[in-house]
Amino acid sequence: MTDLDLSSAHARLRASNPLIQCITNTVVQQFSANVLLAVGASPAMLDHDADAAQFAHLAGGLLINFGTATNQQFLAADAAIEAVTADAKPWVLDPVSIGAADFRTTRIRRAAAAGPTAIRGNASEIAALAGAGAGGRGVESTDEVDAVLPAAADLARATGAIVAVSGARDAVVAHIDGVDHVARIDGGHAFMPLVIGTGCSLGAVTTAYLAAVPPAGTSSQAGPAGVGALERFTAVVAAHAHFAVAGEAAATGALGPGRYAMNFLDALFTTDDDRIARSRVAVTAA
Amino acid sequence: MTDLDLSSAHARLRASNPLIQCITNTVVQQFSANVLLAVGASPAMLDHDADAAQFAHLAGGLLINFGTATNQQFLAADAAIEAVTADAKPWVLDPVSIGAADFRTTRIRRAAAAGPTAIRGNASEIAALAGAGAGGRGVESTDEVDAVLPAAADLARATGAIVAVSGARDAVVAHIDGVDHVARIDGGHAFMPLVIGTGCSLGAVTTAYLAAVPPAGTSSQAGPAGVGALERFTAVVAAHAHFAVAGEAAATGALGPGRYAMNFLDALFTTDDDRIARSRVAVTAA
Amino acid sequence: MTDLDLSSAHARLRASNPLIQCITNTVVQQFSANVLLAVGASPAMLDHDADAAQFAHLAGGLLINFGTATNQQFLAADAAIEAVTADAKPWVLDPVSIGAADFRTTRIRRAAAAGPTAIRGNASEIAALAGAGAGGRGVESTDEVDAVLPAAADLARATGAIVAVSGARDAVVAHIDGVDHVARIDGGHAFMPLVIGTGCSLGAVTTAYLAAVPPAGTSSQAGPAGVGALERFTAVVAAHAHFAVAGEAAATGALGPGRYAMNFLDALFTTDDDRIARSRVAVTAA
Repeated sequence: MTDLDLSSAHARLRASNPLIQCITNTVVQQFSANVLLAVGASPAMLDHDADAAQFAHLAGGLLINFGTATNQQFLAADAAIEAVTADAKPWVLDPVSIGAADFRTTRIRRAAAAGPTAIRGNASEIAALAGAGAGGRGVESTDEVDAVLPAAADLARATGAIVAVSGARDAVVAHIDGVDHVARIDGGHAFMPLVIGTGCSLGAVTTAYLAAVPPAGTSSQAGPAGVGALERFTAVVAAHAHFAVAGEAAATGALGPGRYAMNFLDALFTTDDDRIARSRVAVTAA
Repeated sequence: MTDLDLSSAHARLRASNPLIQCITNTVVQQFSANVLLAVGASPAMLDHDADAAQFAHLAGGLLINFGTATNQQFLAADAAIEAVTADAKPWVLDPVSIGAADFRTTRIRRAAAAGPTAIRGNASEIAALAGAGAGGRGVESTDEVDAVLPAAADLARATGAIVAVSGARDAVVAHIDGVDHVARIDGGHAFMPLVIGTGCSLGAVTTAYLAAVPPAGTSSQAGPAGVGALERFTAVVAAHAHFAVAGEAAATGALGPGRYAMNFLDALFTTDDDRIARSRVAVTAA
Repeated sequence: MTDLDLSSAHARLRASNPLIQCITNTVVQQFSANVLLAVGASPAMLDHDADAAQFAHLAGGLLINFGTATNQQFLAADAAIEAVTADAKPWVLDPVSIGAADFRTTRIRRAAAAGPTAIRGNASEIAALAGAGAGGRGVESTDEVDAVLPAAADLARATGAIVAVSGARDAVVAHIDGVDHVARIDGGHAFMPLVIGTGCSLGAVTTAYLAAVPPAGTSSQAGPAGVGALERFTAVVAAHAHFAVAGEAAATGALGPGRYAMNFLDALFTTDDDRIARSRVAVTAA
């Protein structure tokens, strides 16, 4: 339980059906699209440099993931990031494959410096991006979430982004009005990392929750500058809570990752506001 | 029920196991391949400009879908379309993402002008291609099928293509010997648009049904020129009836889109001639 | 039953969790990644020419499959093959789509000449690569495994590679110390070829089993030069036995390829050393 209003974050996502542009790796495109549909968002995977920016102006949010990036995708990402930045719309960077090779590490660092609303990765990826680790080997995590928390907080301060670390117990870190907010989310299942795309699609869903946050000044909670930041933090935590809840429910009847993946899509779909509100989330601010 | 011989169209597809070349978006390649295999066709996704045309000469039909098109795919499509046109083999255009951005809209219109045997899209895509709407936002439909029927008929007359509009109640429109033929197909399920690729793979299956139509002059119904056109119309309707039937059956036991997607592949596979013949199809000619 | 120690090959794979780089076609990337995860390996699909070689130095093995190859992938493959060859690490060539068109056939032959540890394809693909057949039409096989065995043995002798032929009854052929070793593996199910990627992902799993073979000189069976070759032959046979066993088990409760595909991932995951040891494998050496 938490004081964050995760239930409303979920309700807003379902109500707004945001269009999410994903410039993402081809391994997880199908799964990410199905995940977005299951949570009530609309996926669009346009990634051509000739029109990615034009499309980004239509989208509600943008996900960048360079796991199998092509030159076309690198150029499309540059243009789309510019477009959503100009529109003050949220975008999320998934640093998957950082540290694996110099070329893509350079491009990922460049994207991180462009001001993402949120950065979501596993522990080794976040450590690598923060300069505190060697990076991952593909989509796997070798570091632990707890160990990487200080690096995640540094990264949040340095970039202004909300930083989310996926693992057995997820963490979401944000630096708001000089205070470090840390949410820890329990849930999921050991089968989750055996289904390709569960991490990458969480980046897509994080984008969808952020896209459903009301624009500044329109919120019912309008007030000091930090309110928008807190709503974005809540959105990122809600995305992780949604996955944690569905990831736990998906284990029912699953003997392995095949059935689990199917159940997971169904659980994402059937999870409602009330269930999200009862997710196991602990928040500290210091 | 209908006078169209959908049962024979299905039997011919199963008997001929046509090789279908798909130059299609990477989000739906896997699902489209599995769908083609489930209905008895053989998929091939070769999309390199260096050999797409050579391969097209081997294929029984060609699907073009520019959802995540690369320059390689645009060039491959140009060449493959030329090849199947020279061979008088069927090809289908799925205008997904038309209207989303100028660059790809231009390429989609160019393909539409190259004489596709059929065009299959959702209502907003067909409206956009016919010049009567703003286009879709990704794979979603925002217009209704009924509203777009006049535009679909215009498009069929203008291009000579059979035009299929997917929605809660699909429509297939063809202009044959000066008469507008319209088939309406009932079936499917609300989960269907929550599974990525159900629309795009219907384009692939439409191609497969068309590839199974006997070449002109070899038909048992040989006769006036309109016979070939009527058989192609029947093939497109049969593809949609097959999806409608399987889409309805797939809901059994499904709590969400995960289980539904699995059931759908099984239902496509188990649907037989007799079940296709009993699909809910209404045809008018005026 | 066989004298080959398939059980230990499987145990080593589970214990070593090898990182497998796949430069493979986009149709099967997701399925192949899920299959690798299910058997205990870690997939990475990096395929950019700028860093594929650098990443290959980190990987335990490399799979090359040009089914939907782009120019980027062709260049990445050249570089990655050089890297793993320099490191004396295993790599596997899947000649899917050979014979379909001249351009890719040329590139596949070039890769075959670069000294793969193993070559895995269906009967028509192996026949085409050996110069004894016309090649496949996509991912399908039109020749039979038995008929292609002599060509497979020729290919093994000519290239030094272990040659695996997939079909109703798989064959693995290796020329070791002047003797042709042939293993025949029974299992699988008629639904298997109706699931896209079951062949292509077997290439990935073959790479994973090979990556788990202890380096020369460290084996408990250290001895004559042929020992390493025999362990690699055992690894390739074990990969096929794993698929045969899981492919058979996956049929339980499956009415079609949808449920079968899900079951197959679960069966790959739950198959243990003991079950692999009891697979139906017959080996001859002559």
